[in-house]
Amino acid sequence: MKYGFGVDLGGTTVKIAYFAETGAMLDKWEIPTVTEDGGDRILPDIAASIRKYREDNSIADESLLGIGIGVPGPVNGRGVVNKCVNLGWGVFNIQDVLSGLTCLPVKAGNDANVAALGEFWMGGGMGSENMVFVTLGTGVGGGIVVDGKLLHGAHGSGAEIGHLVLNRDETAVCGCGKRGCVEQYCSATGIVRLAKLRLSKDDAPSVLRSLEDITCKDIFDAGKAQDAVALKILDQYYAYMGEFLGDVCSTVDPEVVVLGGGVSKAGNMLLEGIKPYFQKYVFHAASTVRFALASLGNDAGAYGAFKLALDAFGTKDD
Amino acid sequence: MKYGFGVDLGGTTVKIAYFAETGAMLDKWEIPTVTEDGGDRILPDIAASIRKYREDNSIADESLLGIGIGVPGPVNGRGVVNKCVNLGWGVFNIQDVLSGLTCLPVKAGNDANVAALGEFWMGGGMGSENMVFVTLGTGVGGGIVVDGKLLHGAHGSGAEIGHLVLNRDETAVCGCGKRGCVEQYCSATGIVRLAKLRLSKDDAPSVLRSLEDITCKDIFDAGKAQDAVALKILDQYYAYMGEFLGDVCSTVDPEVVVLGGGVSKAGNMLLEGIKPYFQKYVFHAASTVRFALASLGNDAGAYGAFKLALDAFGTKDD
Repeated sequence: MKYGFGVDLGGTTVKIAYFAETGAMLDKWEIPTVTEDGGDRILPDIAASIRKYREDNSIADESLLGIGIGVPGPVNGRGVVNKCVNLGWGVFNIQDVLSGLTCLPVKAGNDANVAALGEFWMGGGMGSENMVFVTLGTGVGGGIVVDGKLLHGAHGSGAEIGHLVLNRDETAVCGCGKRGCVEQYCSATGIVRLAKLRLSKDDAPSVLRSLEDITCKDIFDAGKAQDAVALKILDQYYAYMGEFLGDVCSTVDPEVVVLGGGVSKAGNMLLEGIKPYFQKYVFHAASTVRFALASLGNDAGAYGAFKLALDAFGTKDD
Repeated sequence: MKYGFGVDLGGTTVKIAYFAETGAMLDKWEIPTVTEDGGDRILPDIAASIRKYREDNSIADESLLGIGIGVPGPVNGRGVVNKCVNLGWGVFNIQDVLSGLTCLPVKAGNDANVAALGEFWMGGGMGSENMVFVTLGTGVGGGIVVDGKLLHGAHGSGAEIGHLVLNRDETAVCGCGKRGCVEQYCSATGIVRLAKLRLSKDDAPSVLRSLEDITCKDIFDAGKAQDAVALKILDQYYAYMGEFLGDVCSTVDPEVVVLGGGVSKAGNMLLEGIKPYFQKYVFHAASTVRFALASLGNDAGAYGAFKLALDAFGTKDD
């Protein structure tokens, strides 16, 4: 039996987990992400934390297959990071650097893609061979698995599906600099924006008007309580989601679409709302795709990071 | 050296070619596609034609690696055809049937995907590892290659990118039954439709008005001659193409986009027209994707079909 580490590198904390090759998570902990000095301390901090854990637990070299790491930015197939703005990083080979610091083989990937791989392996996409994973959080991230392998993309930015165009006529600017992206409508932030736009249109009564700060959860709760305005907002949201997911599924034809992130906490209400619009917009041959909810929560990134290492360095019949 | 056959099965003719494993096309010929009797004669006709060619040229079993075939409908990874409406076919395993008739290993794929594989291997996508291929003909077909492998999709309908949604408000119905598909705007038929809609809007003078039947070529020719109305039609066309290809590239992040089919005969004028809109709509990390024209013409399907067989049955280091 071999073991390894899965590292989920975020803008404020680094999640590190210790895994057996079966996929069992044996331990997990966090360290802060120190972004000062151009992020120069991040990888040495991770290496030191892993070294200390190995010493404390007497983990020998022979029992380790390596380290996988998910990074908040584009990473190509050879491990070259192409700028992580919120870490202060430029362009360099993270696999080479972290491997030099730990004396272990390292495999890196983009964090959204790596979280997708985690859900594919041990979460909502378990048992499938072709999956689309979508995180509906502050932004909209994604990951695509084709025939069991992560689609990294030629420039390390495969599955940037939060930036498909949903509305050519949008005037508001997306975080990416474009206008009319999926993220501007389908993220947790996006649905709140849709709600505010709808509420400002007229004076129709709604429980949402009594709230100081509307959240995504408030909108779903009001919808559940049959608030007419909330139902209209949700209907618009479901239509955007149906078109968006229809386009992605017409392109990659997966077995399953797994939804994660804050909005996915709405659960079956969300899935049932999206489905009729998805059927309207998707190409018929892909219309039997299954919908599922993400199940690993904040651990998806660590699971996926370890799976990256397992695929790269594990024994072949895993 | 091993050899094999690549078969491109179309609605009116079957193109068959004989290849060396280097990719050299040694011979090619056509037979009619007989669609009567539910298409029952199609595979026996192909088998008989291959048998006769082998006899005429004394080709021994030992020198053959197998047959690849592209089929005008969805085909899954195990060779199960899921209805080819214009051949009269239902659901069956084409690999098993054609293999039984020829005593050779058979590998099958969807015709658009197989043509993409041909262009990837020996045409406009040669030398790349990740490619999107788009045929702009009567309809819009596509094929996606990820890390050197064709994306078949879980239901055999990967890369049905002609049916992404470009216009939620469309009232005209697409061949697939949906409204507002890429195919309704970006195909050779689509651009003619855009032209007719534009011409019917007002009385602005245009050389296009003197033509009885407007073709795609007429519109590009008029644009070249600076016809103001044609330039407006082309600008609208380029905007649709830029959004469409931007969405596909934000999803799969290829190295190269290869354009084939009738519209692609407009050549560099088409590529240059699309580029500014593509840059406007695509996610920035995928914006350095290269554009190329398909170069195998009607032979792309045969090349790709043979490559399917080569990948499945060839010696590993090919």
